[in-house]
Amino acid sequence: MPLHGKNIIGNRLSAEGKRTRHAVNPATGERLATAFHDATTGEVDRALTLADRAFRHRRPRNPQQDADLLKRIADEMEALGDELIDRTGAETGLPEGRLKMERGRTCYQLRLFAEVVAEGSWVDARIDRAIAERKPIPKPDVRRMLIPIGPVVVFPASNFPLAFSVAGGDTASALAAGCPVIVKARPAHPGASDLVGQAVQKACLETGMPDGWFSMLHGTGRETGMALVRHPIVRAVGFTGSLSGGRTLFDAAAARPDPIPVYAEMGSINPVFLLPGALAERAEQIAEGLHQSVTLGVGQFCTNPGLVVAVADESLDRFLAATGRLIEETAPGTMLLEGILAGYRQGVERLSKVSGVRVAAQCRRAADLKKTQAAAALFVAEGDAFLENSELGHEVFGPATLVIRCRDRQQMLQVARNLEGQLTATIHAAEDELAAQGELIAILESKAGRVVLNGFPTGVEVCPSMNHGGPYPATTDVRTTSVGTAAILRFARPACYQGFRDDQLPQELQDRNVRGIWRLVDGVLSKDDVL
Amino acid sequence: MPLHGKNIIGNRLSAEGKRTRHAVNPATGERLATAFHDATTGEVDRALTLADRAFRHRRPRNPQQDADLLKRIADEMEALGDELIDRTGAETGLPEGRLKMERGRTCYQLRLFAEVVAEGSWVDARIDRAIAERKPIPKPDVRRMLIPIGPVVVFPASNFPLAFSVAGGDTASALAAGCPVIVKARPAHPGASDLVGQAVQKACLETGMPDGWFSMLHGTGRETGMALVRHPIVRAVGFTGSLSGGRTLFDAAAARPDPIPVYAEMGSINPVFLLPGALAERAEQIAEGLHQSVTLGVGQFCTNPGLVVAVADESLDRFLAATGRLIEETAPGTMLLEGILAGYRQGVERLSKVSGVRVAAQCRRAADLKKTQAAAALFVAEGDAFLENSELGHEVFGPATLVIRCRDRQQMLQVARNLEGQLTATIHAAEDELAAQGELIAILESKAGRVVLNGFPTGVEVCPSMNHGGPYPATTDVRTTSVGTAAILRFARPACYQGFRDDQLPQELQDRNVRGIWRLVDGVLSKDDVL
Repeated sequence: MPLHGKNIIGNRLSAEGKRTRHAVNPATGERLATAFHDATTGEVDRALTLADRAFRHRRPRNPQQDADLLKRIADEMEALGDELIDRTGAETGLPEGRLKMERGRTCYQLRLFAEVVAEGSWVDARIDRAIAERKPIPKPDVRRMLIPIGPVVVFPASNFPLAFSVAGGDTASALAAGCPVIVKARPAHPGASDLVGQAVQKACLETGMPDGWFSMLHGTGRETGMALVRHPIVRAVGFTGSLSGGRTLFDAAAARPDPIPVYAEMGSINPVFLLPGALAERAEQIAEGLHQSVTLGVGQFCTNPGLVVAVADESLDRFLAATGRLIEETAPGTMLLEGILAGYRQGVERLSKVSGVRVAAQCRRAADLKKTQAAAALFVAEGDAFLENSELGHEVFGPATLVIRCRDRQQMLQVARNLEGQLTATIHAAEDELAAQGELIAILESKAGRVVLNGFPTGVEVCPSMNHGGPYPATTDVRTTSVGTAAILRFARPACYQGFRDDQLPQELQDRNVRGIWRLVDGVLSKDDVL
Repeated sequence: MPLHGKNIIGNRLSAEGKRTRHAVNPATGERLATAFHDATTGEVDRALTLADRAFRHRRPRNPQQDADLLKRIADEMEALGDELIDRTGAETGLPEGRLKMERGRTCYQLRLFAEVVAEGSWVDARIDRAIAERKPIPKPDVRRMLIPIGPVVVFPASNFPLAFSVAGGDTASALAAGCPVIVKARPAHPGASDLVGQAVQKACLETGMPDGWFSMLHGTGRETGMALVRHPIVRAVGFTGSLSGGRTLFDAAAARPDPIPVYAEMGSINPVFLLPGALAERAEQIAEGLHQSVTLGVGQFCTNPGLVVAVADESLDRFLAATGRLIEETAPGTMLLEGILAGYRQGVERLSKVSGVRVAAQCRRAADLKKTQAAAALFVAEGDAFLENSELGHEVFGPATLVIRCRDRQQMLQVARNLEGQLTATIHAAEDELAAQGELIAILESKAGRVVLNGFPTGVEVCPSMNHGGPYPATTDVRTTSVGTAAILRFARPACYQGFRDDQLPQELQDRNVRGIWRLVDGVLSKDDVL
């Protein structure tokens, strides 16, 4: 499928803007084919107006069609074949194997969400029947369910050009909830976005969605993003990226005449706590697992473990030595973008200069800057240094990690208490030392969206129970997840109908439970019809 | 029980501030007994620090105790007997019958929430079991449930001194979710707050809650409120009141280093659409119902119908004549506060001056300002005037309503489209004209949190399916309700546990389903144990 370089506005393509740009292969510096057109303000407005019209006129809602759309997007993405993998690889420096895995994950997610939508119980339908004879006043018939919130704008991530991009988690969630989506394509991978955008556009046509259900706009500057977030039609925003980017959008949305929710996933340092028993038992094994997790995808994961906390003892020394050896042997890797590499190098530089922090190991082979390569690094500092310097708690996005040597268990707990909000927190513990860890678990539960025991935080399973979220600054909304089926709930709101005639109610709330969903009827969960 | 006039800080009373004030009886202008002490910054901080410690140290969580607390608060409120009704009446001008109803509603709500918490399924537990042999990577064991968000600050309403105050909906929701609560008492009814505060404090002691689970602070100025919302310990805010008050808190919370959710319910004009068939059938009956709804509690309800929309015809004239007669005969009523009366009088004045708006009827008996009395009023304007003047869509809090005479059905739909966000929207329709109302229903569903058919919006049933919320400016968060059991969800967040040992998991997520709650196990809803 040829790249068109244009903005997708519903069923059409549009390239009204004068400003164009090309993607660059970070591994070679080569400028890649196709000029991509930044969207104009007029194009932004057209995409949103179409989305609004499509949303308002789609009555009744049609969850089966939403499910079909999600499945069809997966099919069309797969049909793009190697072309998608090749172009995405050229734009991101990510290897083929990883991208195939990521495509698999993306399509699995779309199909899983399709199942949830087709099954239908996620709308949390509740029915309370009238009691005409109640004293002192009759009880009315009241019914309620979740309905789609309205047009959603999605800002994809650069580090997952498929799974957190044009047809990634946010888009899948919003479409599953029954919302139209406008994607602001990541400038880092416009070609991959173009291809997947075409796949989504095709899927919309094939499943008969109204024109404007999906649009995708290019834009390099701040303007396109701000125009989208401030536009009166937009009802919610999904974002994955940096803290400053996410906060800017959050602030703009909160300052609107009518504030709207911004679900910004902004990453974290994902602390890993190594308890003495675990280190005594398997320091080398943990070192291996940690090294793999730190260097996976050249450290460009939101769940990358950037902080390790342990009590200083002989086992920790063994762990440090083993990790150091592995870091030294790590081949330099191509990062996604020059800007990301620059950020990593600054972060490493900044960390090395903090008093009390020492470089314990660095990748032995020199990184080739022309190939946008980063060198892995291992830092060590004492617990006191961490507690005195809040900078040590800030994310360095890339293949580096900082080990904090604590004086004792009390200091380790103090380090835990001083953490900011995290996506994940991990504990490694021996079988017999777990029972005494209630306090540590409690602290980490309050700091992180997900607590991992004897594992590593990278690898975010797509399933109903996943929570990929957490307290600020990990995200802007601790109440939500951006991975797993609960992510759909972000793009829904309750609607309540009182005294309605059965045939005027949404299907999910009618007496006959045609869709066979779980409903809370007079406080009791049931799949029965209401008699 | 004697009033103490002090701030409640956990198990103690505190009156460090120099500034005191007295409540005033709006019906007589009389200054009521007991000086109430504004909280100092030190007292604010102490209440929050205690709440935080109580929250962090209460491990494991104990839903049965939470349920006991809610029930005990209801018992203790009832035990206050006539003293509570008398004092609340003196502070608000509300009649005894209404206050007894409101107390009944408040206690019913507390007990209903206790049932939900004791049953336990509201935590939306999800379990996905490990699949060690999955290729290419093993599937981890992942489990997730909702946990309490942390210390919650509640700003009660003045118009429901019991049901939306110290032990009202927000407090009940937060306690049900397992969160400590700090109430900033409404200056309008400090004595009622003092009494109910004592009841809650006693209930906390009797059920063995940790010190600091509940505090109540007095404060007249902006400072106490802002200090609470900006305090780093606070995790969420509930508010019921004016648009300007709610927005101020929302803005302050959004501007925090770590933004927190503010659930502000700020009221609306609750439009009522009268279709020609309904008016032809029962213009007088609708007039009676509307009049009752408009003047209920001297119009001081968030769901007060401040706008009526209909197509101009002979039946509408009959409706207007009938409503006008009822409004003229309405006795002037004492409003809650001088400030609220002043706001109402300004609103009425403002409305009368808008070009195209005429006063169709006004209460015949003169309102006695010394008794803080308001006179009911009926305004009429043409559809064009409404569409040309957005001011006509703004709330006038009190016993007044504005009838919009539309040229035709199209204009009526246009009026609907021009509405701001609403708590409720109502339609009156004859049996045979309902089927054609799909478009109107769709518009109103997008504008309001609850759509009422052939009823009136006042009277908000406390039940699982109630939605008392709506798009901005009705509330600051369209995803939530402040009435009904779903209100509990506002004060919870997901927590996820990966690879945990069974005995380290919260009880709700352990293999054995000891609490017998509904759980989503590998995508299937079940009450079974996990094998």
